[in-house]
Amino acid sequence: MRRDLSDAPFLLAARGRQPSRLPVWFMRQAGRSLPEYRRLRTGVDMLSACFDADLLTEITLQPVRRHGVDAAILFSDIVVPLRAAGVDVEISSGVGPVVRSPVRTASDVDQLPELHTEQVDAVAGGVRALVGELGGTPLIGFAGAPFTLASYLVEGGPSKNHERTKALMHAEPELWHRLMDRLATMAVTFLRAQLAAGADAVQLFDSWAGALSERDYRRFVLPHSSKVFAGIADAGVPGIHFGVGTGELLPAMREAGADVVGVDWRVPLDEAARRMSAGGRDAPVVQGNLDPALLLASWPVVEDEVHRIVEEGRAAAGHVFNLGHGVLPDADPTVLTRIVELVHGLRPGPTGR
Amino acid sequence: MRRDLSDAPFLLAARGRQPSRLPVWFMRQAGRSLPEYRRLRTGVDMLSACFDADLLTEITLQPVRRHGVDAAILFSDIVVPLRAAGVDVEISSGVGPVVRSPVRTASDVDQLPELHTEQVDAVAGGVRALVGELGGTPLIGFAGAPFTLASYLVEGGPSKNHERTKALMHAEPELWHRLMDRLATMAVTFLRAQLAAGADAVQLFDSWAGALSERDYRRFVLPHSSKVFAGIADAGVPGIHFGVGTGELLPAMREAGADVVGVDWRVPLDEAARRMSAGGRDAPVVQGNLDPALLLASWPVVEDEVHRIVEEGRAAAGHVFNLGHGVLPDADPTVLTRIVELVHGLRPGPTGR
Repeated sequence: MRRDLSDAPFLLAARGRQPSRLPVWFMRQAGRSLPEYRRLRTGVDMLSACFDADLLTEITLQPVRRHGVDAAILFSDIVVPLRAAGVDVEISSGVGPVVRSPVRTASDVDQLPELHTEQVDAVAGGVRALVGELGGTPLIGFAGAPFTLASYLVEGGPSKNHERTKALMHAEPELWHRLMDRLATMAVTFLRAQLAAGADAVQLFDSWAGALSERDYRRFVLPHSSKVFAGIADAGVPGIHFGVGTGELLPAMREAGADVVGVDWRVPLDEAARRMSAGGRDAPVVQGNLDPALLLASWPVVEDEVHRIVEEGRAAAGHVFNLGHGVLPDADPTVLTRIVELVHGLRPGPTGR
Repeated sequence: MRRDLSDAPFLLAARGRQPSRLPVWFMRQAGRSLPEYRRLRTGVDMLSACFDADLLTEITLQPVRRHGVDAAILFSDIVVPLRAAGVDVEISSGVGPVVRSPVRTASDVDQLPELHTEQVDAVAGGVRALVGELGGTPLIGFAGAPFTLASYLVEGGPSKNHERTKALMHAEPELWHRLMDRLATMAVTFLRAQLAAGADAVQLFDSWAGALSERDYRRFVLPHSSKVFAGIADAGVPGIHFGVGTGELLPAMREAGADVVGVDWRVPLDEAARRMSAGGRDAPVVQGNLDPALLLASWPVVEDEVHRIVEEGRAAAGHVFNLGHGVLPDADPTVLTRIVELVHGLRPGPTGR
């Protein structure tokens, strides 16, 4: 049973309602920017940490304690459901996920295992512990979107150009859609396990979607990301949809069923809101969008940017302050704490709904 | 003295005039996709090849002979003028350019050497040989734009997030502008050497500009890229301006003084033309924009994409067919040749001017 957090600023803003303060959290807030995280991870590989209920609970809590952010984000990795289902994938240091047997043929796709809920029991256990510990702070669940999972599977690892993935979608569209349908089902199973354990919201993270034109996104990706949002709609929690470099895709990513669309630093939030409300649609709720690289600049630079972004966010129906991508490992965590204090001191915008 | 190529389809299209056929060339057409290139490069490192007049001439000619493209692009590398001026930079295999002493302080910037024309005599010699060999095919000169050079210098090598570069521009804008001014001067010197030797057009390649918001691009980059175009304007040759992921920047990149704006595959050419002619400006000439990843798909996929792109290009004042980024090393060169034949069989669009 889910906690009643109806006054939580993050959840109010995500639903386009008026929060008592402007909510803020940071993508990758749980991670390498924190010395207490680096200590916990010493000698523990990434995927082991993601499947250890105690460890993922503690890692998820660290930035909430330190920064006073308005939401916790489940510490996980995009490939966790693949690994849980039995796919041979490792996270190689300095490289990223490496899939031993890339998925490229009909037989590869048919042999891709399904994810069963009990295979992510450790994650669900972490979520249950977290909702017990978090008090009034909402917990955002997390899953990688089907396209990003597909790219790792087809390429066999991180890819700059996604050429095998794009060639497959165009040359064998039926096979592509079969693969994507399986991955959408997997994401739904993973998210439903988190929701059943008490997660208060979800973020569907499509890291690589920005590599696609809107045309290809709508044809090859949108139906499957829509299936993910539809598959969790009965939980009634806000869904966030984010990818980097997605200026051309924002309306389509909203149409997938997202309540909140994350925007990177390339598109100002007022322009993002304009694009997503074109054609007479309701103003959207946006999340973003401080360039994480600027955390390495001086405080007056950060302060000016935060003020500008909050002003631009007032054009939307709601604004969840965040970075435009994940916290970089070299970021100074004290700057993140100052940003939280600054954002909390600013007046939340009027809702547009 | 420059050749008179007033009927060359590439030059006519680049000037917004009606060519006899739709011109086509490919970014990175001279390079690893060609077995004859890989043979020539055996045992020769990249920068040595760029400073060997005979070798760069032959490498530049290879794709013209093989594919029958409408323009040659000078075989070079973005860091060639830096290396020529005396900066300690190597191209490390599988990594990219590595700068031994990154440029981050006022003293680093002041010690950055100037480029003197005679330091690129080998390149100029190659250009002279090329214009003798190329017959009626125009030669496009090449330089990296100041921002991309600055990123390599500040980061010390290729960077995913450009965090030190962005931190420097925001935190120390005066120092940033001094660095960029020096790099713009260097690009002008390099391009003027190529133009004096007979190049018929130039492409200013800003690989990483797409990492910036339009706001930051206009403040920190546009004045310097404008200086490059202004510094070669008296040559009267068409200037192409390209970066990847620049959907938000297209109007600004045109304003820098470009005659032709290259567009990647994320933005359809008709939409790109619309963005650049907003506010009552003339329709632009565009270059692009087949996704290079699709060269790995089957021919019918490529054929459909080429037809679509040529149709969309008719919305512009001129269209130079190209990829939306460079040829990938795994691309099959016979597909490139077929694309040239296909494009040449299609009706060039009416000019919008």
